[in-house]
Amino acid sequence: MAAPALKPVINVAAICGSLRKASYNRGLLRAAMKVCSESIEGMKIEYIDISPLPMINTDLEVDGTYPPVVEDFRQRILEADCILFASPEYNYSVATPLKNAIDWASRPPNVWADKAAAMLSAGGGFGGGRAQYHLRQIGVFLDLHFINKPEFFLKAFEPPTKFDSEGNLIDADAEERIKKVLLSLQAFTLRLKEKC
Amino acid sequence: MAAPALKPVINVAAICGSLRKASYNRGLLRAAMKVCSESIEGMKIEYIDISPLPMINTDLEVDGTYPPVVEDFRQRILEADCILFASPEYNYSVATPLKNAIDWASRPPNVWADKAAAMLSAGGGFGGGRAQYHLRQIGVFLDLHFINKPEFFLKAFEPPTKFDSEGNLIDADAEERIKKVLLSLQAFTLRLKEKC
Amino acid sequence: MAAPALKPVINVAAICGSLRKASYNRGLLRAAMKVCSESIEGMKIEYIDISPLPMINTDLEVDGTYPPVVEDFRQRILEADCILFASPEYNYSVATPLKNAIDWASRPPNVWADKAAAMLSAGGGFGGGRAQYHLRQIGVFLDLHFINKPEFFLKAFEPPTKFDSEGNLIDADAEERIKKVLLSLQAFTLRLKEKC
Amino acid sequence: MAAPALKPVINVAAICGSLRKASYNRGLLRAAMKVCSESIEGMKIEYIDISPLPMINTDLEVDGTYPPVVEDFRQRILEADCILFASPEYNYSVATPLKNAIDWASRPPNVWADKAAAMLSAGGGFGGGRAQYHLRQIGVFLDLHFINKPEFFLKAFEPPTKFDSEGNLIDADAEERIKKVLLSLQAFTLRLKEKC
Repeated sequence: MAAPALKPVINVAAICGSLRKASYNRGLLRAAMKVCSESIEGMKIEYIDISPLPMINTDLEVDGTYPPVVEDFRQRILEADCILFASPEYNYSVATPLKNAIDWASRPPNVWADKAAAMLSAGGGFGGGRAQYHLRQIGVFLDLHFINKPEFFLKAFEPPTKFDSEGNLIDADAEERIKKVLLSLQAFTLRLKEKC
Repeated sequence: MAAPALKPVINVAAICGSLRKASYNRGLLRAAMKVCSESIEGMKIEYIDISPLPMINTDLEVDGTYPPVVEDFRQRILEADCILFASPEYNYSVATPLKNAIDWASRPPNVWADKAAAMLSAGGGFGGGRAQYHLRQIGVFLDLHFINKPEFFLKAFEPPTKFDSEGNLIDADAEERIKKVLLSLQAFTLRLKEKC
Repeated sequence: MAAPALKPVINVAAICGSLRKASYNRGLLRAAMKVCSESIEGMKIEYIDISPLPMINTDLEVDGTYPPVVEDFRQRILEADCILFASPEYNYSVATPLKNAIDWASRPPNVWADKAAAMLSAGGGFGGGRAQYHLRQIGVFLDLHFINKPEFFLKAFEPPTKFDSEGNLIDADAEERIKKVLLSLQAFTLRLKEKC
Repeated sequence: MAAPALKPVINVAAICGSLRKASYNRGLLRAAMKVCSESIEGMKIEYIDISPLPMINTDLEVDGTYPPVVEDFRQRILEADCILFASPEYNYSVATPLKNAIDWASRPPNVWADKAAAMLSAGGGFGGGRAQYHLRQIGVFLDLHFINKPEFFLKAFEPPTKFDSEGNLIDADAEERIKKVLLSLQAFTLRLKEKC
């Protein structure tokens, strides 16, 4: 509707899977937001806080309505064009707070449906890799379309230092790789949306 | 209580992955407890409630201690000889409340370590099957030793009716299959424990 | 028969993961080809035989060229617009002959890249379900874009009889579900291809 | 050298997933065999060549018998106390030649059943990690009991150089980690075998 002739603005919902204040993965999202506003045209990232969500329990659904914080969260996912997840790996799988957010927004009607998505992760071992493949399987049911490439895993504890003490990303190479993920997500989102 | 001289009593910690009151999977655990007390010697199942646990956030750990409800939960896992999980599948992966409990008890020192384990699941589709394979991968990091066979998946929504309105299992075949899981878990637990 | 002006013909490469003569999964592909030619406009399925391929061994690559049967197979994948896999599950994962074909066509340059794909499977247990999720993970590296829905699993050994003695599908409901997979694959292929 | 009275000798069947002559993963097995004979008492590793096996096709089974090379392979697996796999990752999953060997030995009667097992892998990315988790899922059906720890992944292409030009492991740290895998496999095999 708006947006100049050829390139619509893509709205990205950014979700961090950890509730820790100094979360490295929230640091990845701050870096993504900075990179996006500074050097990517036609893309806007909105950070969505999942910390107010109660633990999933369908007994909390009354007459087809959800608790207000859940409704609000669901609405913001619904309005996004695509999703950017940044999450640590907990015990070789998806971080629990992220899974909780996913479960709430999947309740009928599933508000994730048919959106493009991408993932970032920082951690030990494979840098969050095992969790990303579990998240991809979850995406089949949610009907998310994950980009295949590039994948982004950050080995947070290997030298050189990747984050400062507040969890801000201070690694230029990682920042450059995040930019490539964003460009791929933008391109895939547009490709899935374009109607002639 | 009985158990002859040479057979020690195996203590099983039973965990339900859903917080719903009428959860089918909690119904599976009630059935397991009934089968166990009625017809399996040398095995005792204790149900452990995970609903009081807060959402995982390591900022809640202060000076190496956990919130009291978490400490209590961890202590009960630590004291068990083996674990029986019963959980629905949420979005093709592990139910969030279960993952939350797993994450808390994995914090140092990991109290799951080196225990035998088994899984039950009831649900649509594959009867919880996809979640079970994710849980098995989680078990590698936790150092749980899952039994391989028999696997137990219950297609909760296919005829004949499997549960009454309060979530009690009313299917004799499923009950028999649960018994086989328990016997396999008992045998594997003993096999891993036996020291000559 | 011919597609009207604006709808290009989608060329589908169909691959069966089993080498058995009476393979049920090859029967699924025959059913798909029949359904396609009878009732789907703008889509053509070509069956590609993988039985001549040698066991993968990169020592067989000489000066950057592949054995002739491999070159031929790779060429046919390259020319397709999208891929339809039909494969049994072997030991909870992808059937070996299918994995072999995948590995050969992934050698540089990877000829699977950026194509849409869908899967059919018939078998015991989950009807091939575990293998499909492994295949989806493989698809991330191959850069295949699998449709999310509908998923097609056929429990080949549950009544009513699904196949005749030559492996021909004789189940009308399954045939209808195959048609829906094909329509979804067609739509997703077009969506990924369309350039304005 | 000879095992003392009470410690039985554990026979390990070692299988390499690649057919390449200069395979790094075969190099891992040679290193394991050297470490074992030099410094582990009560354990013997036998290398089993899988290259003669035909591509899996149950049409090759005649009157319940398998081709001679298959029978021979199956017999050697049957006689082993436990299994050591060393395999590259192909396309984010199990290497095809390894899957082929697994499939043949799983045919009735499944000769893998109830054995302990461990995995080594060398490669790019996660050093073969994605393939290992697929192999663990396969192990559920085979009824293999994989050790949980330590896991062994070797990033073959990161400095310092890990292998010489013939694929021999020249990294002392990796050799030490292989020794720990072998000791864990030995201990787990004994633990599963011990009968009082």
